[in-house]
Amino acid sequence: GVAPGSADLSRVVVDREALAVAAEADGNPVIPLVRALRDGVSEVDVDVAPWVHRGLTSQDVLDTALVLCARSAVEEVRRQVGAQVELLVARATEHRDDPALARTLTQPALPSTVGLRLAGWLHGVLDADEQLAALRWPVQLGGAAGTLASLVELAGAEGASALRSDLPARLGLAPAAPWHTRRTPITRLGDAALGATDAWGRIARDVLELGRPEVGELRDGSAGGSSAMPHKANPTLAVLVRRAAIAAPPLAATLHAAAAEQVDERADGGWHAEWHALATLLRHAVVVAAQTTDLLRRLGVDADRAAARLAEVEDDLRAEQRSLAGLTGREPLPSYDGLAGELVDEALARAAAHDPHSHLEERA
Amino acid sequence: GVAPGSADLSRVVVDREALAVAAEADGNPVIPLVRALRDGVSEVDVDVAPWVHRGLTSQDVLDTALVLCARSAVEEVRRQVGAQVELLVARATEHRDDPALARTLTQPALPSTVGLRLAGWLHGVLDADEQLAALRWPVQLGGAAGTLASLVELAGAEGASALRSDLPARLGLAPAAPWHTRRTPITRLGDAALGATDAWGRIARDVLELGRPEVGELRDGSAGGSSAMPHKANPTLAVLVRRAAIAAPPLAATLHAAAAEQVDERADGGWHAEWHALATLLRHAVVVAAQTTDLLRRLGVDADRAAARLAEVEDDLRAEQRSLAGLTGREPLPSYDGLAGELVDEALARAAAHDPHSHLEERA
Amino acid sequence: GVAPGSADLSRVVVDREALAVAAEADGNPVIPLVRALRDGVSEVDVDVAPWVHRGLTSQDVLDTALVLCARSAVEEVRRQVGAQVELLVARATEHRDDPALARTLTQPALPSTVGLRLAGWLHGVLDADEQLAALRWPVQLGGAAGTLASLVELAGAEGASALRSDLPARLGLAPAAPWHTRRTPITRLGDAALGATDAWGRIARDVLELGRPEVGELRDGSAGGSSAMPHKANPTLAVLVRRAAIAAPPLAATLHAAAAEQVDERADGGWHAEWHALATLLRHAVVVAAQTTDLLRRLGVDADRAAARLAEVEDDLRAEQRSLAGLTGREPLPSYDGLAGELVDEALARAAAHDPHSHLEERA
Amino acid sequence: GVAPGSADLSRVVVDREALAVAAEADGNPVIPLVRALRDGVSEVDVDVAPWVHRGLTSQDVLDTALVLCARSAVEEVRRQVGAQVELLVARATEHRDDPALARTLTQPALPSTVGLRLAGWLHGVLDADEQLAALRWPVQLGGAAGTLASLVELAGAEGASALRSDLPARLGLAPAAPWHTRRTPITRLGDAALGATDAWGRIARDVLELGRPEVGELRDGSAGGSSAMPHKANPTLAVLVRRAAIAAPPLAATLHAAAAEQVDERADGGWHAEWHALATLLRHAVVVAAQTTDLLRRLGVDADRAAARLAEVEDDLRAEQRSLAGLTGREPLPSYDGLAGELVDEALARAAAHDPHSHLEERA
Repeated sequence: GVAPGSADLSRVVVDREALAVAAEADGNPVIPLVRALRDGVSEVDVDVAPWVHRGLTSQDVLDTALVLCARSAVEEVRRQVGAQVELLVARATEHRDDPALARTLTQPALPSTVGLRLAGWLHGVLDADEQLAALRWPVQLGGAAGTLASLVELAGAEGASALRSDLPARLGLAPAAPWHTRRTPITRLGDAALGATDAWGRIARDVLELGRPEVGELRDGSAGGSSAMPHKANPTLAVLVRRAAIAAPPLAATLHAAAAEQVDERADGGWHAEWHALATLLRHAVVVAAQTTDLLRRLGVDADRAAARLAEVEDDLRAEQRSLAGLTGREPLPSYDGLAGELVDEALARAAAHDPHSHLEERA
Repeated sequence: GVAPGSADLSRVVVDREALAVAAEADGNPVIPLVRALRDGVSEVDVDVAPWVHRGLTSQDVLDTALVLCARSAVEEVRRQVGAQVELLVARATEHRDDPALARTLTQPALPSTVGLRLAGWLHGVLDADEQLAALRWPVQLGGAAGTLASLVELAGAEGASALRSDLPARLGLAPAAPWHTRRTPITRLGDAALGATDAWGRIARDVLELGRPEVGELRDGSAGGSSAMPHKANPTLAVLVRRAAIAAPPLAATLHAAAAEQVDERADGGWHAEWHALATLLRHAVVVAAQTTDLLRRLGVDADRAAARLAEVEDDLRAEQRSLAGLTGREPLPSYDGLAGELVDEALARAAAHDPHSHLEERA
Repeated sequence: GVAPGSADLSRVVVDREALAVAAEADGNPVIPLVRALRDGVSEVDVDVAPWVHRGLTSQDVLDTALVLCARSAVEEVRRQVGAQVELLVARATEHRDDPALARTLTQPALPSTVGLRLAGWLHGVLDADEQLAALRWPVQLGGAAGTLASLVELAGAEGASALRSDLPARLGLAPAAPWHTRRTPITRLGDAALGATDAWGRIARDVLELGRPEVGELRDGSAGGSSAMPHKANPTLAVLVRRAAIAAPPLAATLHAAAAEQVDERADGGWHAEWHALATLLRHAVVVAAQTTDLLRRLGVDADRAAARLAEVEDDLRAEQRSLAGLTGREPLPSYDGLAGELVDEALARAAAHDPHSHLEERA
Repeated sequence: GVAPGSADLSRVVVDREALAVAAEADGNPVIPLVRALRDGVSEVDVDVAPWVHRGLTSQDVLDTALVLCARSAVEEVRRQVGAQVELLVARATEHRDDPALARTLTQPALPSTVGLRLAGWLHGVLDADEQLAALRWPVQLGGAAGTLASLVELAGAEGASALRSDLPARLGLAPAAPWHTRRTPITRLGDAALGATDAWGRIARDVLELGRPEVGELRDGSAGGSSAMPHKANPTLAVLVRRAAIAAPPLAATLHAAAAEQVDERADGGWHAEWHALATLLRHAVVVAAQTTDLLRRLGVDADRAAARLAEVEDDLRAEQRSLAGLTGREPLPSYDGLAGELVDEALARAAAHDPHSHLEERA
C-alpha cells in the first residue's frame, strides 16, 4: 500500500464559498471538504487520494479542529488576562491606601480604599484565569460510531491503539475516549469563557457607574465620539465590554442545552447547535479580552475626587462604628477601613503566585 | 440654504473593512459611516456634505436600518411559511383519514390519523405566522437624546413634526415616539422569530423520531451523505431545523435581558448587546424557513407503515374504550379515533381563512 | 346512566402532601388527584365516582387549570399596570416641562425634561399592557391523544362537539383545537410576562442610577434598612424589581425550549419542563407588579436638583446646537429641548386612549 | 464585656411566615432574622442580645448559609452519582460484548456494543463528578463593605484576622477574601450542577428513544400510569430527568448574568437575582440525582433485541468496511466493532480509579 500522509496538501486549494453551500446539503462542512481534498490530492498523487480521511468521521475532524481553534483563542485570552493582572497589580499597589467611599445597593456605605476596589477586580480576573488554565484539550478520534472500527480495519487493533496516542501527541492535544455525544470539553470551554466575560463585565459596570461625571472617581479613557454631539466623550470600551457580558450567558446555556440533547452515538441536532454559539462566545472573548486590557490601561483613577467624596459623607458612615463603640465602651478607632490594606496585599500576593503560563506549556 | 437630500449617494463608496475597524473606537458603525458619507458627498457636492446626518443620532440610523432589514427578513420568512401552509394543507387533505398510532411519552397511546398529526403542524405554523403578521415596523427618529431638538433647530417645531410622519411614510415604516430605551419593537421581533423556530423545531422532532427506520412512518427526503459511511441517508434538513430550534431561545432571551438593562436616554451596553443576537436570530429564521419548506416538500409519508403499526397494537389501545363501554353499558363504537377527521377539517378551514399577506401590504 | 357532575365536590378533601409524593411516580399530579377525587366522590355518591375524569387526559386538566390560574395572575398584573399608568400620567403631567439633563452612555448629552423621562416609562408599561391584553385563554380538551375519542364514545360525535364549546363557555375560556404539543398559548404568556418585567426593570435601573446620591434626581422611597448600618436607606423596591428583570428572560427561554422539544401526540419532557418556569415567571410578575406600583407611588422626584444639574452643564451641551446654527446661519433657538413637551403629550394621549379592561371582560 | 456566642440559640423560635413578609421590606431575610434572634436572645440573656450579628453584614450571613446548604446538596448529589457509577460499572461489565446497533443522526450507522453505550454514560457521570468534586466552599466574611471594619473595631486587627481563619474552620469552610461582588463560587456551583443535569439528560434521551417499543432495546422500569389509558406504562423517570435537563441551562445562565451585573461593593439586584435560580438548580439536582439512580437501577436492557436489530441491518452497515477492504486489498475482518471492548475497559478503569469521596473529606 501507499504511505498515507506523504502528499503535500499545502498545494490543495479549497473554495470556501462552495464549501459553505455544500455544507448545508450534507449537514456539515467536512463532507465537501473531504471531497475537495481528495480532488486536490488526486492532482498531486493519484494513489494517495483514496486514503484521505479514511478511518475518521466528520465529527472527528470538526471537533478536533474546533479544539485546536479554541485553544488558540483561549491562549490569546490568557495573554490578555496576564496583561490585565499586571495592570491591576500596578494600580492596586499605587492606590492601596487611597481613601474611597464603599457603596452598597448604590448608596454610601462605609469608608474603604481605591486599592480594595481594584483588588476586587484583580481577584475576579485571577478566578477567570484559574478556570481557563484548567481546561483540557482532547483530540476527537472515534470513527463513524465511536468504535474506531475503520482504523482497526486499516491498521489492526494495535495500530489503531497506537494512533490513539500518536495523533494527539502530533497535534499537542490530550488523548481521549471518543466524546461524540459527551460534550463536557465544549461545555467547560463555554463556562470558562463565560467566567472571563463575567469578570470583565463586573469591571465595566464599576467603570460606567463610577465614571458618571456626578461621581467621577473613574474615567474610561476611550473617549468614543458621538455622531451628533461634539462635546461627548463616551466610555466606549466599558460599553462594549458590558455588551459582551450581557450577551454571553445565553450562549453558554445553548452549549449545555445541546449537551443534554445528545442521543445515540451521534446527535440529531445537538452537535450542530454548538457551532455558532461556541464560535460567537470565543470570538467575543478574544475581542473583549483585548478591550478590557485597553480599558484598564487607559483607565483614569481620580483619587482626589474619591477622597473628597468620602470626606463629604464620612461622618454619617461612622454611625455603625459609633454604635459598636457604645457596645465595647472603647473610643472609636481613628480610621474605619478595617483590613482594607491587608486585603489588598492578599490579592497582590495571589497575583504574584499566579502563573499565567500554567497549563499552556503542557502541550509543548 | 441647500436642499439636503439632493446629492446622488449611489456614487459614494464605503470601505466596509475600514468601517468595521472604526466602529470599535466609536462603539457603533454609524459614526465612521457618517464620516465616509460626508467625505463621499463632498466630492459630489461640497455644499451638501455638512448637512449629512444633521438632526439624527447614530441610534436613529441604526435602529431604522435594522427595522428595514428585519422587515425584509420577516417578509421572506412569511413567504416560506405561506409555502409551508400550502404543503401542509395538501398533505393533511391527502392523509385526512389514514390511520396512525398516536404516541404519548414515547409510548403507544390511541388510534389517530396521519392527517391529524399534519394538522397539528399546520396549526403550529399558522400560530407562528399570526405573530409575525402582528409585528409593527416603527421608524426611529429622536435625535441625540430623544427630544428631536436638532430637527427643531433646523426646521422649526412644525417642520420637525412634519418630518415625524414624512420620513416613515417615505420608508414605508410606522411613525413612532422615540424608542431608544424602550425596546419593545426588538423584543417582539425576537419573540416572533422564536415562535417560528419553535413551530419548525417541533415538526423536525416528529420527522426525526418517526423517521427512525424502526418506526419508519416519516422520511426526511434530504438524504444527506456521510463522510465515512456510503450507506447512510441522513435526515439533514430535520437536523438543521432542530439545531436552530435549540439555539434560538437563548438569543431571544438576550434581547429581553438587553431591554431590561436600558437606562437614561440611551443605554450603557444594552443597545449594543442586541445586535449580534438579533442578526443571528433573523439570519437563522430566514435560512431555517427555507429548510423547513424544503423538508416538507421532500417529506416521505408512509401511510401503509403507519396503518400497519397501528394494527399491530390496536387491540391493546382499545382498553380505554372497553373500560368506557363497561360504564355506558353500550357496545364500543367501531372506530376509536374520535373527532380526528373534524379536527383536520378545522385546521384546513383555519388555513383557508388565513391571509399570508396580511400586514405585509400596509406599507405599500 | 347517572348524570356526571351532580356530586358536591366541595366536600372532597385532598391531602396535598400525599398528592405531591404520588405525582412523582406518575409524572404529574393529575393521576393521584383523580384517584383522590374518585375516592372522595365515592363517599358522597358511589354511582358517580366511576365517571370522574372520563373523557379527559391529565394534560387536559392540568393545562386548563394552568390557563385559569395564569389568567388570574395576568388580571392582577394588569390591575397593577393600570395603577402604574395612572401614577405615571399624574407625574408626567406634573413634571411635563421641568428641565432635566438627558444622559446617553452614562454621560451628559442634551437638555430634556423630567416629564419626558417619565413619559418614556409610561410608553413602556403601555406596551407591556398591550401584550398582556392580547393574550388568549384557550381550554385544553383533547382526551388522551388529542382526538377526543373517549368523549365521542361517551357522548357521541355531536355530544363531544357540543362539549367543545360548552366547557370553555362554562369556564370563561376560549374554545380551541387541542394544543397538547403546540405550546403557543404558553410561550405567548411567558413572552407577555417578560414584556412586563422588561418595562419594570428599565424603570428600576433609572431609579437606581438617578437615585445615587451623587445624582439625586430620583429617590426610591422604600428606605429599606441595613442589618449593619443604621444610616442606610436602601432602594429596596428598585433592587427587587431589577432582580426580577434579570431573572425573567431565561425562564421564558425555557418555555420556548420546551415548546420546540414537543414530539408525538404528547411530549417526552417538554411539557413537564414548563411547569416550574411558568409558575416562577407568573409569581414573580404578580409580586413585582405590586412592587413597581409601590415604587412609583413612593418615588421621590427632585425637580430642583434635576434643573440645577442641567444648568451646570448646559453650556457644553449646546455645542450641537451652535454647530447647527453655524450651518443654518440663524441664531440658536432660546431653548434646546425640541419637542419634549409634545412628546409628553403624545404619551399622555396614548394613556388616555388606553383601556385597562380591554379583553378582560370578554370572559364575562 | 460578655463573651458573645455563649447563649443557647436553639431555644429561639423564629416565625418563618413573619420572616418572609419582613424580608420584602428590607430586601433580604437576614435583617428581620437578626431582629428575631436579638429578641429571642434577650429572653435568654439580655446582655448577649446586643452583640448578635455584630461585625457581620446580611450578605455574610446569607452567602455563608447558602454555601453550607449548597455543600449538603452537592454531597447528596455526589452520593447518588457514586451509586450511578456502581450501577453503570456493573451493567457495562455485564453487557461489555453484547452486540448492538450504533445510530448516528437517528439512522443505523455501524456495529457497536451495548457495553460501549453504557460506558459512554459512565464517562458522562464521571465527568460530572469531577466537576462537583472540584468545588470549593468559601466562607463569606467581609462586614458591611468588605473591609471587615466592624470586626476590627470589636476585636482589633489581629482579632479580626484570627477570626478570618477561625470562623471557616468552625464551619468546615475555606477561608476567603470577601466575595460580595465576585460571584465565582456561585457560578461554578451552578455550572457544576448543570454538568450533572447534562449528563443525566443525555442518558434519559437514550432511554426514551431506545425505549420506544419499535426499538425496544432499553426500558424505563418506572412504569408510570396514565390517568386515561389503563394499558400505558410510561417512562416517567426518564421524562422527569429530561425535564430537568431542559430547564437547568437557563437557570445557570441567570447566575452568570447576575455575576456580570455586580457593581460597587454590593450589587443593585445581581445578588438578589441569584437566590431563586440557585435554589431551584440545586433542588432539581438533588431530586434528579435520585431519579437517575432509580432509573439506572430499574433499567431494562434487552440485549437479545439489540443483537437482533443489529443482525437485521448489519450487511448494509458493512459497506464502509468493504470499501476499506477494497483499498487495503485484504479480506474484511470478521467483526467490525473496532476497539469497542477496549473502550469499555477504559471507562471501567476510570471508574475504578475514581474516588467518590475526593474533596468531600477535606472539611473534616
